[in-house]
This record gives sequence, C-alpha cells and structure tokens, in this order.
Amino acid sequence: MTEKKTSGEIRKDPVSESWVIIAQERANRPLTTAINNRPQGQQFCPFCEGYESETLPEITALRTPGMKANGPGWSVRVVPNRYPALDTELALELYRSGIYCSIAARGAHEVIIEGAAHTRSVTELPSGMFTEVIKIYRERLASLSRLPHLRSGVLIKNVGLAAGASIEHSHSQLIATPIIPMRLQNELKTARAYYRKQRRCIWCDVLAEERRIHSRMVFEGDEIVAVCPYSPRFPFETWLMPKRHHSFFEATSDSCLVELATALHAVVWAIETILNNPPYNYVIHSAPFKSKNCSYYHWRIEILPRVTRAAGFEQATGLFINPTPPEHSAAQLREHLSGL
Amino acid sequence: MTEKKTSGEIRKDPVSESWVIIAQERANRPLTTAINNRPQGQQFCPFCEGYESETLPEITALRTPGMKANGPGWSVRVVPNRYPALDTELALELYRSGIYCSIAARGAHEVIIEGAAHTRSVTELPSGMFTEVIKIYRERLASLSRLPHLRSGVLIKNVGLAAGASIEHSHSQLIATPIIPMRLQNELKTARAYYRKQRRCIWCDVLAEERRIHSRMVFEGDEIVAVCPYSPRFPFETWLMPKRHHSFFEATSDSCLVELATALHAVVWAIETILNNPPYNYVIHSAPFKSKNCSYYHWRIEILPRVTRAAGFEQATGLFINPTPPEHSAAQLREHLSGL
Repeated sequence: MTEKKTSGEIRKDPVSESWVIIAQERANRPLTTAINNRPQGQQFCPFCEGYESETLPEITALRTPGMKANGPGWSVRVVPNRYPALDTELALELYRSGIYCSIAARGAHEVIIEGAAHTRSVTELPSGMFTEVIKIYRERLASLSRLPHLRSGVLIKNVGLAAGASIEHSHSQLIATPIIPMRLQNELKTARAYYRKQRRCIWCDVLAEERRIHSRMVFEGDEIVAVCPYSPRFPFETWLMPKRHHSFFEATSDSCLVELATALHAVVWAIETILNNPPYNYVIHSAPFKSKNCSYYHWRIEILPRVTRAAGFEQATGLFINPTPPEHSAAQLREHLSGL
Repeated sequence: MTEKKTSGEIRKDPVSESWVIIAQERANRPLTTAINNRPQGQQFCPFCEGYESETLPEITALRTPGMKANGPGWSVRVVPNRYPALDTELALELYRSGIYCSIAARGAHEVIIEGAAHTRSVTELPSGMFTEVIKIYRERLASLSRLPHLRSGVLIKNVGLAAGASIEHSHSQLIATPIIPMRLQNELKTARAYYRKQRRCIWCDVLAEERRIHSRMVFEGDEIVAVCPYSPRFPFETWLMPKRHHSFFEATSDSCLVELATALHAVVWAIETILNNPPYNYVIHSAPFKSKNCSYYHWRIEILPRVTRAAGFEQATGLFINPTPPEHSAAQLREHLSGL
C-alpha cells in the first residue's frame, strides 16, 4: 500500500496518536465574512425557506403534510454538508507508509437546519419546535449508528463566527467517523477502568457527588440534570445528563427528550442573558456505535460558551485556563432559572 | 482536606483526566477590544519603551550598559504576567473531595517583551535581535526548570486576537506548571514505548522518514530542520526541530540557536507572505523539567497559523479538520524560501 495523495483521508499522528481529517473539499467553502467578524445582515441565506435548491437534496425533513421534498413547507430539514469532512461513499481503506498510517475519510457529515425562518440561536425558535429538533437529532444519530464501519457520532452546534459558524441561520451538524476520537478514547479508558474496579458508572458517581455538594447544580428535573462541571474549560460551561444511567443518546425515551429540550432551551437562554448573547457551541456525546455492553458510558450534552479565546497555550498543551469558577457560574444560572 | 473554594487551583477532570487552571485573577484582565476584532490603533501600550512602570518590575532585561532596570534603554524585557494563571509563591498543596482532586496553582507565568518599539510580529524585529530573543527564551526556561515542584514549561507566542493575543506589541509567554499537561503526557507515553521497543527516538525516526520522502520538507540547515507534519491540525502548520537528538530546549547550543532564529524568522515570514499576515501561534515543546534520561523526547517548535477556526467539533472531540494537505503547504513554503 502506498501513501495516499488525494483528499479525504484521516491521518494519525505517530506520537500523540490523535487523528486529523485532511479534507480538501472544505477548502472550497465560501468564507462570506472576514474571519474575525460575526456574519450579519447577509443578503442571501441558503438555509432559509424558499432557497431549498441552494442545498444538496434533503435526507429527511419535518414537513406540512402534502408538501414536496426540497421545496417550502418544512420546519426542520436535514441535508448533506456541501463541503463534507467525510464521505459515506468511500470504502474503508487503510494506507501505510513507513512510520505513518491513515484511513479513507469514510463517514457522514450532515446539517440539521432548525427552522424555516432565519434565526441565530435555538432560543429564538418557536416554543415546542425545539423538541422536534431534538427528536431529529436522535433519529439521525440512530440512522448513522447502523451504517457499517462507522464507530462514533457527535452532534455539534456552532453559534457565532467565534464558535465556528460560517452560516448564521440556526443549524447543527452531525459527524460520524470510522475512528473513535481522542477525547472519547481517553474517557472510555478511565470509565472502563473505574467500572471494573467499582462496578459503577463513573458519571453516575459524579452526578451523585454533585447532587450531594449542590454548589455546581444548575437544574434538576425528573429525568435530566444540568450541572457546571468541576473542571470546566470555559466560563459557564454546563453539562446536561440523564439522571439514570443511559449510554446511547439515540435510544433516549420521548419523555426524557421532552424534558431535555425544555432544560437545554432554558439553560442556553440563561447563558445568553447573563453573557449578552455570546458565541457558543453545544455538543452531544454518546457511547460508540454498536458497543454492546456500555454500563460504563453515560451520554451528555456540553454547552460551551466562547467568551474566552483558546489561545496558543490551550492548543499546545490541552491544558485550559478558565477565569470563572464553576461554583460562580452555577449560582448565577440557578438565580436566572429560578424565576421560570 | 476539604474542597478549595478560592482561586489559584488546577483541577483534574475525573473522567478525561485532563487538567484545567481555574484562575480568577485573569477575570480582571482588561479586554480592550471587542472579542472578534484585532486590536489596532491602541492609544496606549504597556509594553512600549517609556511605559515600564505599567508592567510589574522586570525579572531580567537586555539593556544598554549603564541603563537602570524598569526604565528605558532595553531591547528585550521579561516581566511577570500581571494576570497570572499560576503563582510561584504558592506552596504545592493537594486537595481532595470525594471523586475530585486539585492542586494549588503553583507555577510561573512570565511575559517576554520583544523589542522596545511597537511591532506586531517577530518578522518586524530588527535583524539580529531575534537571536537575542531566542536566547532569552532559553535562559528563562533554564531558570524555571530549576524551581522546585515545577514539572514542565512551555513557551507560547500569540499574534493577533484570533490567536489569543490581548496585547498587540510583540511578546511571548512562558508558563511552567506543577503537572505535565495532557498532550505532553500522551506524547511521552508513545515515545517511551517506542524507545523501549526500537531503542530509537520516535522523532528522530520521523525526521529520517521526512528527509527520505521530501514532500513535506520546508528547510534543512546544518542543525535545524523545518517540516510540515504528516497530520497537521492547521493549514501551513510547520515544525522546527534540531536534526540531532536533543530533548531540552534550555540546553540548546549557541550555534543551534543562531540557526534556529534565522530559520524561524524565515518560515514565519513565508507564512505571513502566503497567508497575508494571519493570526498565528508558535510554541516551544521541551522535555519535562528534571527528567534524567530523555533519549526518547525531542524538542520542537510548532508554528500554528490560525486561518481556520477551531469550532465545536474540534473542542468536543480533539479531532481536527484541516482543508490543506501538508504536502501543499510545504511546496509553497519551499518556493517562497528558495529565493532567500
């Protein structure tokens, strides 16, 4: 096997053992605004109702009965990313050259367009519709989890250019990969070792500890808990998790999803109120696809407000500097949520 | 021991096992410009000659003979960071609470001011002075490596707000920590295992492979090599390394430093020419302080141009998406450097 020279490759660093997707397709992505400015007042939005032909043909959509695919009359629409980092059509091939190895960038890269009208953040979506959006996240993740040779999927929302959004219209992305990314690998390793020793899920124990201490708790419902984690990378970083042990987001019950949608909406609203509409990401972490016994992994949503910049130090070391203790963030979030 | 509530703490995530510095001091740092704009046309620069009283008293400086400390007449000046992430005065204490642990944020956080005149990038420094700057990096790293309870030091330069610079005037930061950051830990683990099996440094083997393949080579001098790595996280990411095995940057010879300064200056210049003065970081990675036998670790400088944004996906997974193959970056850099 020779070294692959074309695009669409996932390369492994021989020393850090982390992976990088070399995705030349994405070099063609239009950067409509200067890199340091939030997109605003765009004349043309490919995600708005009426511009359906500007995206690739839809994978699925939530439509008014009788309305045709790829035309108006929808509230949530899922399309392939026009500049994909990964491609479901690629065969899973391995390339080796001396000390190096890579695999073909087989995988999925979908875009979930949240609402026919042009809104920036999920908190602007009409009430009730956010639950439908979350159900689509579950449906697409379940569908991708069944594809052969894919090992892990992550749902990401980028809001604001500083958080990585190149299009303002509220949307999320689903990326499924044939490898398990480094951060999930590290977590699985610790969680497995902890389970072997204690016969308990480490996140279940973390949640028990947080409910006991209370100072970092943000919200506790029947099925969902929101907490500022003990060692957050970002000010006001907040995690939402199911109270009971569940490994796979794609297997979440309807009742849990309904509570999740309400809680996620409320916490994002509180963060936007306190920090004055900051750029933010949220991310759904779920157990690797097709893992049979997953007593040790607990799914979660991380909300990552981006008011601090990840500078050279964070990139270089993986060690983050956060000026805001999570106990302060949680106290403010609790105060803002208490009136709801 | 009880859970520590005050600032100045390094907390360990119980699952990912990565560390976060909770540094409340830094919350007081003035953000003179909006988060998405490059600072420009500042009326007042605390790093310019004549404003020495605006910084904390200097640790060392390169001065015209006869000129007094903390006044004008210098070309390089080292001062403590006014908003430090870490503090050399703290005792090394361990705190435990249930499943969590943290240590006091003992460490150093210094600023190296590069030039009395207001310049943005090292490529604007007067010829020859950059060698003096690099020698100061070596001197300060050597000095910090001898402090008790510090295990690792990293030098970082941030240029441009999108790369994390809050002050425009060319400067670098030196951060020394009582723990070994996650990325270095991961590298040491692989490098140690490789050495045990092969009895060779993995980076020495990587360099041999790169010199054989040539497609990612940027520059080769008598002592220094510049190469675009096989799996770069960023377009035009370039690494500079000593050709022969050296673990500690702080033990680098004068002749090697002189060649390094010339090469680093030239490569940054080429990147700025090709990418139109992008925000960038460079980082010096060196072996952990006080490690006796370090046949397996090889120091390097990483140059990280920041033309792509690390979005939610990268933060969430540690998996980077890079649209530019390193073979393309290296070919362009070689072309720009061939005229020198």
